[in-house]
Amino acid sequence: MLKVGVNGYGTIGKRVADAVCAQPDMELVGVAKTRPNFEAETAVRNGYSLYAALPERVDQFDDAGVPLAGVVDDLVAESDVVVDTTPSGIGAQNRELYERHDTPAIFQGGEDADIADVSFNARANYDEATGAQFVRTVSCNTTGLSRLLAPLDETYGVKKARVTLVRRGGDPGQTGRGPINDILPDPVTLPSHHGPDVQTIFPELNIDTLGLKVPATLMHTHSVNVTLESTPAAEEVRDLLAGESRLFFVPKHAGIDGAGKLKEFAMDAGRPRGDLWENCIWEESIAVQDDDLYLFQAIHQESDVIPENIDAVRAITGSASKEESIALTNESLGVGL
Amino acid sequence: MLKVGVNGYGTIGKRVADAVCAQPDMELVGVAKTRPNFEAETAVRNGYSLYAALPERVDQFDDAGVPLAGVVDDLVAESDVVVDTTPSGIGAQNRELYERHDTPAIFQGGEDADIADVSFNARANYDEATGAQFVRTVSCNTTGLSRLLAPLDETYGVKKARVTLVRRGGDPGQTGRGPINDILPDPVTLPSHHGPDVQTIFPELNIDTLGLKVPATLMHTHSVNVTLESTPAAEEVRDLLAGESRLFFVPKHAGIDGAGKLKEFAMDAGRPRGDLWENCIWEESIAVQDDDLYLFQAIHQESDVIPENIDAVRAITGSASKEESIALTNESLGVGL
Amino acid sequence: MLKVGVNGYGTIGKRVADAVCAQPDMELVGVAKTRPNFEAETAVRNGYSLYAALPERVDQFDDAGVPLAGVVDDLVAESDVVVDTTPSGIGAQNRELYERHDTPAIFQGGEDADIADVSFNARANYDEATGAQFVRTVSCNTTGLSRLLAPLDETYGVKKARVTLVRRGGDPGQTGRGPINDILPDPVTLPSHHGPDVQTIFPELNIDTLGLKVPATLMHTHSVNVTLESTPAAEEVRDLLAGESRLFFVPKHAGIDGAGKLKEFAMDAGRPRGDLWENCIWEESIAVQDDDLYLFQAIHQESDVIPENIDAVRAITGSASKEESIALTNESLGVGL
Amino acid sequence: MLKVGVNGYGTIGKRVADAVCAQPDMELVGVAKTRPNFEAETAVRNGYSLYAALPERVDQFDDAGVPLAGVVDDLVAESDVVVDTTPSGIGAQNRELYERHDTPAIFQGGEDADIADVSFNARANYDEATGAQFVRTVSCNTTGLSRLLAPLDETYGVKKARVTLVRRGGDPGQTGRGPINDILPDPVTLPSHHGPDVQTIFPELNIDTLGLKVPATLMHTHSVNVTLESTPAAEEVRDLLAGESRLFFVPKHAGIDGAGKLKEFAMDAGRPRGDLWENCIWEESIAVQDDDLYLFQAIHQESDVIPENIDAVRAITGSASKEESIALTNESLGVGL
Ligand SMILES: NC(=O)c1ccc[n+]([C@@H]2O[C@H](COP(=O)([O-])OP(=O)(O)OC[C@H]3O[C@@H](n4cnc5c(N)ncnc54)[C@H](O)[C@@H]3O)[C@@H](O)[C@H]2O)c1
Ligand SMILES: NC(=O)c1ccc[n+]([C@@H]2O[C@H](COP(=O)([O-])OP(=O)(O)OC[C@H]3O[C@@H](n4cnc5c(N)ncnc54)[C@H](O)[C@@H]3O)[C@@H](O)[C@H]2O)c1
Ligand SMILES: NC(=O)c1ccc[n+]([C@@H]2O[C@H](COP(=O)([O-])OP(=O)(O)OC[C@H]3O[C@@H](n4cnc5c(N)ncnc54)[C@H](O)[C@@H]3O)[C@@H](O)[C@H]2O)c1
Ligand SMILES: NC(=O)c1ccc[n+]([C@@H]2O[C@H](COP(=O)([O-])OP(=O)(O)OC[C@H]3O[C@@H](n4cnc5c(N)ncnc54)[C@H](O)[C@@H]3O)[C@@H](O)[C@H]2O)c1
Repeated sequence: MLKVGVNGYGTIGKRVADAVCAQPDMELVGVAKTRPNFEAETAVRNGYSLYAALPERVDQFDDAGVPLAGVVDDLVAESDVVVDTTPSGIGAQNRELYERHDTPAIFQGGEDADIADVSFNARANYDEATGAQFVRTVSCNTTGLSRLLAPLDETYGVKKARVTLVRRGGDPGQTGRGPINDILPDPVTLPSHHGPDVQTIFPELNIDTLGLKVPATLMHTHSVNVTLESTPAAEEVRDLLAGESRLFFVPKHAGIDGAGKLKEFAMDAGRPRGDLWENCIWEESIAVQDDDLYLFQAIHQESDVIPENIDAVRAITGSASKEESIALTNESLGVGL
Repeated sequence: MLKVGVNGYGTIGKRVADAVCAQPDMELVGVAKTRPNFEAETAVRNGYSLYAALPERVDQFDDAGVPLAGVVDDLVAESDVVVDTTPSGIGAQNRELYERHDTPAIFQGGEDADIADVSFNARANYDEATGAQFVRTVSCNTTGLSRLLAPLDETYGVKKARVTLVRRGGDPGQTGRGPINDILPDPVTLPSHHGPDVQTIFPELNIDTLGLKVPATLMHTHSVNVTLESTPAAEEVRDLLAGESRLFFVPKHAGIDGAGKLKEFAMDAGRPRGDLWENCIWEESIAVQDDDLYLFQAIHQESDVIPENIDAVRAITGSASKEESIALTNESLGVGL
Repeated sequence: MLKVGVNGYGTIGKRVADAVCAQPDMELVGVAKTRPNFEAETAVRNGYSLYAALPERVDQFDDAGVPLAGVVDDLVAESDVVVDTTPSGIGAQNRELYERHDTPAIFQGGEDADIADVSFNARANYDEATGAQFVRTVSCNTTGLSRLLAPLDETYGVKKARVTLVRRGGDPGQTGRGPINDILPDPVTLPSHHGPDVQTIFPELNIDTLGLKVPATLMHTHSVNVTLESTPAAEEVRDLLAGESRLFFVPKHAGIDGAGKLKEFAMDAGRPRGDLWENCIWEESIAVQDDDLYLFQAIHQESDVIPENIDAVRAITGSASKEESIALTNESLGVGL
Repeated sequence: MLKVGVNGYGTIGKRVADAVCAQPDMELVGVAKTRPNFEAETAVRNGYSLYAALPERVDQFDDAGVPLAGVVDDLVAESDVVVDTTPSGIGAQNRELYERHDTPAIFQGGEDADIADVSFNARANYDEATGAQFVRTVSCNTTGLSRLLAPLDETYGVKKARVTLVRRGGDPGQTGRGPINDILPDPVTLPSHHGPDVQTIFPELNIDTLGLKVPATLMHTHSVNVTLESTPAAEEVRDLLAGESRLFFVPKHAGIDGAGKLKEFAMDAGRPRGDLWENCIWEESIAVQDDDLYLFQAIHQESDVIPENIDAVRAITGSASKEESIALTNESLGVGL
């Protein structure tokens, strides 16, 4: 059994913790939190051992009547691997902590690429993580693009990818985030940093990205163009992508016009928190014009990186091969709609 | 075992169907649907027998490969009680169908009050439904107000209630609904029809309501004023309301500032679809100034009527007393956070 | 001619500057700004003398090629009155500057009431400002409430006012403000601070307020209840309010359902920036039930305080009577739709 | 003097009417409306002669006390040219009316291309409209793309254009339009119909478009990629585009991050209704990677077609050359910020 600690228990951290518990080969040591808010309460409810991320705040937990199993140092000490799911930039500060304990750690996409030896996507470069001390699971957008581009590049060759990322302004609970009524070029300079982030996974890939931010909270949507080296028919591309376990096709005639109905579908299907771990590609949108492939995909920012973090735990410890890990993660979570 | 049919499988219908299945004393005969869309697929997935609501569309289901157990007439014939969860106005058209089969039916709040002998809220007037042919579960807003006003009126006497309903523009999947960036008096004439709807439950109650519509999808929010006959301290009111099983207090210091975090909390707690069957009252908001009580409550429009529909099934059939039914519904669904 | 300086050139400041220029008895000395952004450019375009609010940033203006007439100290020195329209809290820091120059100053509603001798609304307490060193024009919401409550209290007596303020999340250009998809009780504790702010104008008034924040940018909307000492018919109230120059009735059958169409109407009418200086009361909404008056009004947060600031300039300097000033301001701006 | 009638007085029609009045060589005969709503009132205020678009509704105008100059037939009879600004599809029904009077007419982009002999953009194909009976001013999006692509194609040659149109869900007053919280692929099939619409102006152009709809009301935003035949530096492209009179560069460092601040800028500059007749291109966004040009532009859907409609009046009547007309329209409206 791999003993896994989760440092930072927010949007990503709570999902990673639940996912760890669902694995037959993993055991959750516990989770570290900074404050005894409502999320702390659900951690306790779920029976997760809670560790104070900031030792000086132990009192706050005591005052709130939230029992602690220790401080974050204890959590790291007891873990074989730590998944760090603290906010962007905090991971970098925590690196020294993991180094001190000589504990391998997995960071998130909010950290700079150079925090880790390897930027990771299970489909694209699983093996590169083996034996690393530090691995960075790439961001939700980069994860979504990597899963899509890997099979396209392998099968047809990618001459150039150009992707417009229409991003949600904030997660559903982030009430301080805007915009309320605007469409913001973000960043306004082009191409955006998302392309280079994809290149941490595919160093040779020719990709330019453009980012925008809009008043929506549920999912990001990618407007994708890929100029291919060859010119398959749209059906061939559809068949190729249909074979990928972490790509879900929004069926024609299902009446699913956006993220609202996609999430409804996920909730109807019994998914925890209505999570959509898969890229959601509108089947009808897949089109090929000469050598240009086009499609729309929606990316659930809160959850698409979860299976990748689980695979990263196995990759970094060398405890399973790529195929074994992906299959096991998919099976235990219920990936595939 | 009560055999229950659900006619109309949308936002409310699918939740009623799931809730029926969770009851020890009920059995779901099946659900009637008009179209084989993504919700039909999840009905099949859940093992629910599907009936064509419109016999002339049987072919559409066949074409889509969605198996049917029959048409809506069959569903009604096999059911002891039908819960009609079709869109506003369609229920009225279906009444004749239930009359023909002499099957008791429960309508929803979108129908006019005169569709049924009794407008129903479990906490307030359970017994009035016993033996009725037709019962109408009141709307989400009226349900939320009834649960709150019943104990207040019983304990302190309500001199006058004045409530501003800040309503969500549409449910999360209703992408055709606005407004995008506005605050709409709706209806613009005052007082609004919501007050008289509450009076279908409390005929003697003095209540004026004002309605607005805003660009949000998650929950309604009620800005409540109740002038009381007596002048309890805020803590007494808090204690009184804390004793009600379908009122949930948003705890102080939990950091829950609105519907987004409330739904997050519900999802973290493992609630199906993140449903909040309870009124969500901000504990900190409860205040008494002279004889005026004030508070804020959020109402999850998609789910607060679900326990009421289940209770209505027992009430209409006389199969359990009010206390038994409420306790059983709460227990089987997991009401109470 | 009254020489008026405007310190802070943002949403409120630029409107005050334009309004000062429209007065026959006032002269704009200039405006002070902190940064040479796009608003600085339009100030220059309009021929307004620009002063550096922060002397240490003079270079930034030079670099941007934006000509300066001096620093804020010069502006104050040359002005008979300064209207301080800096962000909340900055006004308090600027007080010492005005004291040093012995220049009367008018602050905005974002400052605490105790910044000034008098909180001001032209309709309600014009004369109290005469001869004061410092006056505070109350906030957009308090201004809107004062204009409405003054005639009601004078004519019928106000037993108690209860108002729910459904507030816009941010101004149209404030893209960093949320929420995107939520309805937030704000503040969550009741009653809100807006009531006491109204009491800075009407110390004896019995008023409780409740505040919410929603994802809209155009206007606030007030859901108003006033329990009156007497019981006029709705038409009488309508006639009373129709006689007030800064209350505009949204006409029945005009098809104006919210702030979007109201602003469209203002823009069609040629209003600068589509400003609505008047409270916009839906005529159809005015209703009386027993002694309870109800109505909806929309308040244009960016502009309803502009005529009040102009009147405050005359009041503080004693240069005109209340009636003269209100008439002159209305006439020169074009108040009244 | 060209006598111009405007049939349909909504978002586009009222702007066309105002723009006609601003031209030295045109005279507004009047405007035809279907209902006496608030827009009718402002037409009367502006001194525009009003004609009943639907003769059977003359009574409604009488009842509302709105004076009529006649019915739409009279308007057409008295006009040299009619600009038809009725809702999509109504223009097609009106064609016969204009044929009957043998009056040239200009339709809007909501009509199918085959309604007219020529689809029109002043910059791209002014001369093709000369002498035509019917001309269609292309849609706001196609207008925006045509203005941008014309100089690029002339100077560098366009190998292929790929554009993602992130479209506003509705205009500010269209409160019935959604979505509230979603990002909708629209249309979901690719490429979208917007590309072929651009080809009505540039028949040889290789262009693929993708459309989305988001919860914003102010402007559309285009994420533009143009693969060029040659490889200019970004500065060269900037200089080329800077020479175009209907392209506005959002200046660097102006702090304008989206449509909200753009509209604020337009209102500060005194533009009627805050209209932005020009494409608004973020200067900082212009980038060239190999032969791929990228940029962001915001398009004010309510107003960018106005100068084009004015030019179309001169083009269809042959009353001025392309250069004369564009210069005169720009000068009289104040195009160029
Ligand atoms: N939310 C998303 O959409 C998303 C998607 C993919 C990747 N990410 C990345 O995942 C990481 C986490 O993001 P998130 O959205 O889960 O953030 P979050 O704010 O929801 O959660 C972060 C948690 O870490 C806690 N925390 C703060 N400081 C800490 C510290 N010093 N030690 C331990 N815990 C601390 C916070 O209390 C919070 O519970 C970031 O790198 C982010 O960029 C986020
Ligand atoms: N959604 C809410 O917020 C909410 C809350 C409380 C009460 N209600 C009330 O519940 C009722 C249902 O609302 P909903 O939101 O679930 O609507 P919905 O549109 O989500 O679902 C209605 C379902 O009925 C089906 N249907 C349509 N015509 C039918 C017919 N002739 N026979 C059988 N089925 C038919 C539709 O296909 C759909 O699946 C309405 O009266 C509504 O006012 C809704
Ligand atoms: N915007 C509204 O809705 C609204 C309505 C009524 C009252 N108010 C009040 O008016 C005041 C101004 O608000 P606003 O919305 O115009 O703010 P704003 O941010 O739009 O404008 C403030 C301006 O002051 C400038 N500034 C910042 N620091 C300064 C300093 N030290 N000296 C001089 N200028 C400085 C800023 O650069 C900016 O241009 C606040 O008290 C606010 O509460 C605002
Ligand atoms: N609004 C935009 O963003 C936009 C942008 C570019 C082009 N367009 C196109 O311009 C045209 C008009 O659009 P709009 O947005 O101005 O519409 P609108 O609805 O704002 O205005 C249309 C007007 O026509 C009137 N009308 C309806 N039926 C009529 C009839 N039979 N005869 C005369 N008048 C009638 C309506 O009362 C209304 O006043 C459409 O083709 C649209 O596609 C609109």
